[in-house]
Amino acid sequence: MNGAAGAHYDEGVSEIIELARRARVASYALAEASRATKDAALRAMAGALRANTDTIVAANAKDVAAAREAGTPESTVDRLALNPSRVDGMAAGLEQLAGLADPVGEVVRGYTLPNGLELRQVRVPFGVVGIIYEARPNVTADAAGICLKSGNAVLLRGSSSAAASNDAIIAVLREAAESAGLPADVVQGVPTDRAAVKELMQARGLVDVLIPRGGAGLIQTVVSESSVPVIETGVGNCHVYIDADADLDLGLEILLNSKTQRPSVCNAAESLLVHASVADEFLGRALPALAAAGVTVHGDPAVVAAGKDVVAATEEDFGTEYNSLDLSAAVVGSLEDAVQHIRRYSSGHTDAIITRSQAAARRFTQAVDSAAVVVNASTRFTDGGEFGFGAEIGISTQKLHARGPMGLPEMTSTKYVVTGEGQIRS
Amino acid sequence: MNGAAGAHYDEGVSEIIELARRARVASYALAEASRATKDAALRAMAGALRANTDTIVAANAKDVAAAREAGTPESTVDRLALNPSRVDGMAAGLEQLAGLADPVGEVVRGYTLPNGLELRQVRVPFGVVGIIYEARPNVTADAAGICLKSGNAVLLRGSSSAAASNDAIIAVLREAAESAGLPADVVQGVPTDRAAVKELMQARGLVDVLIPRGGAGLIQTVVSESSVPVIETGVGNCHVYIDADADLDLGLEILLNSKTQRPSVCNAAESLLVHASVADEFLGRALPALAAAGVTVHGDPAVVAAGKDVVAATEEDFGTEYNSLDLSAAVVGSLEDAVQHIRRYSSGHTDAIITRSQAAARRFTQAVDSAAVVVNASTRFTDGGEFGFGAEIGISTQKLHARGPMGLPEMTSTKYVVTGEGQIRS
Repeated sequence: MNGAAGAHYDEGVSEIIELARRARVASYALAEASRATKDAALRAMAGALRANTDTIVAANAKDVAAAREAGTPESTVDRLALNPSRVDGMAAGLEQLAGLADPVGEVVRGYTLPNGLELRQVRVPFGVVGIIYEARPNVTADAAGICLKSGNAVLLRGSSSAAASNDAIIAVLREAAESAGLPADVVQGVPTDRAAVKELMQARGLVDVLIPRGGAGLIQTVVSESSVPVIETGVGNCHVYIDADADLDLGLEILLNSKTQRPSVCNAAESLLVHASVADEFLGRALPALAAAGVTVHGDPAVVAAGKDVVAATEEDFGTEYNSLDLSAAVVGSLEDAVQHIRRYSSGHTDAIITRSQAAARRFTQAVDSAAVVVNASTRFTDGGEFGFGAEIGISTQKLHARGPMGLPEMTSTKYVVTGEGQIRS
Repeated sequence: MNGAAGAHYDEGVSEIIELARRARVASYALAEASRATKDAALRAMAGALRANTDTIVAANAKDVAAAREAGTPESTVDRLALNPSRVDGMAAGLEQLAGLADPVGEVVRGYTLPNGLELRQVRVPFGVVGIIYEARPNVTADAAGICLKSGNAVLLRGSSSAAASNDAIIAVLREAAESAGLPADVVQGVPTDRAAVKELMQARGLVDVLIPRGGAGLIQTVVSESSVPVIETGVGNCHVYIDADADLDLGLEILLNSKTQRPSVCNAAESLLVHASVADEFLGRALPALAAAGVTVHGDPAVVAAGKDVVAATEEDFGTEYNSLDLSAAVVGSLEDAVQHIRRYSSGHTDAIITRSQAAARRFTQAVDSAAVVVNASTRFTDGGEFGFGAEIGISTQKLHARGPMGLPEMTSTKYVVTGEGQIRS
């Protein structure tokens, strides 16, 4: 678990194992650092990012030029590109973290046992966290900050196409952490070759948790290949179900917001279900409104029959997270049919019901087993910021450890502290 | 995550996938079952075990005879063997579960967001849990009961050497569950061949969590081969550290209890560390007392020098969970050296300090990162029953999800229920 589990790496130590060991050593100091020290480090990191804006933007320009030369789509280049305003945004994010409560040391539960032993369950850092992510250099500062505040040393494995940007940012963050009295190794970059990521996924005992942040392909690879425990984030095939008792005005507004307010993100709606008893009226209004908003509807036969410009949906459509202005749609005969459909196709991220019926809301929220189940509101609210967490490392769609938006407490484990005066078992 | 993730299993469905799908369907009904229904099922299962004692003991006799014929060690046969009293113990365990609070539905946190959205984080079952365990038929009833109470359908993969016993017990439990109005498939056995367990470990999306219960070899296999999330249980290389400021009488009593009260279990002490300033006095008393209790001490040079009959310890000794009347022992120069030793060798289960010093206790409990850190008490208290949980599925030594003894709440996930009145994001 701790040092012992790393012992079998002794021979032929690779660069990754060496990085992970340094992270482990740094994690001991970080775990014991006071909130004051950690917040000072976060503010120092923010200041250093701002002071080194020119260096960071210049490094980023190399990545951007290489990406353009390689014919990278402009939307990807946009996520990769930094400018002084974006660097300032990264710094502001770190300062915001400094203002949040420290999860470490929180007593989750505590009581005295019949034999007088005092039991406390206390939040502690995981130790060493690995983040595997794509070509978004802002994630580098963001993830480093969240890990630092939650007491975890971090191994940042970004994309090779953002390597110059990440190297520049990490160098700045490390120096700033050290200036605040923490080991520089609380933040480390990991080589971007494939062999390195494979080793990272096998470093069980040295790395406590891996969090992949990015597309479905990346996440699937990490989930299936890692022997280090993984927190799966992200995929959102989110549903909006218009119940027989729905307020249709409200339903239409929520549907449009869920689908079109930011279609590329995981909490955007991808599928519409409408109760048969209100299908004619609702689709008669919704289909033109969706078309006007640029949305292509992929409908089942009942939806196709209800409007023009509806594309016939395939089975695959209902299981698809489009992340675009596309929407699958079906008419269901009952609330139970809607539940069955969601059980079959939902990715377990966010599913919403629009209804005035207390019984329907209660049934839906009980029967639909997703990270977030929403009544009469947009699916777009499933977000650490919107939930008031102040910071978010991702949205977990797995059931183990954390589910839904993950803030600082979700980046911790716990330990039991048991205090006695000589108690023994008989 | 839910049904969709299982879709790619459609062709050439194996028996395991079919079992897992039936478990998934049963899990929906179980997740919605009231506490009253679940408790009635647990009591019906207890009654049915008692009523079918003869059948169960007869089936077990076949397993026991086969084990003896295969030359199985008598200690293993003892764990395998059932008699009416042991069957009654299994029934009593189920009845005890019926008396515990239902974790499902507990609101973990809840508040109203600035925009009026009401947010509640609510405990929900995982869904489908797989338990992989060794030749202990009592685990069959125990695990089935804990899963049922926490709302999880369970796939029980026991040892082939307990197959007749497990089949008999599972048949009884299924019929009783059904008599109480739950689907029989809330409890299912899994074939005991190796192919079946491999498939179970790959059934991500159909099985939510796998829990291996048994020896280190079994656990390592599941941890490294499973793509289904795993909760690692068990290995305990537990330390007792006698501080410079220790009450030596109390230290000796705690050491003997930690080591000898039940040496075969994971929370028994395996290693003694003594501060140099009290080493002569403490070892002068402890070594004869340990010898008198039948304990073989494997000591570092300082310990070897302190007493006769001390075996010289190898590096490996300090990393070993003996589960026997053996104890590694070393003299350390300081509390910090004890912490370093524990970081290097501990399995992260339970480590204890004996001290009168508040500063030493504080430093030890902060610096030692194990599931349980104990001050002035026996390591043997790290146990769901002793901690007051009423039930325990195992002791997690991983940091993700649950750490330490796992009771009913640890067998659940959560979901967010978000209730609004038309809120959209702008």
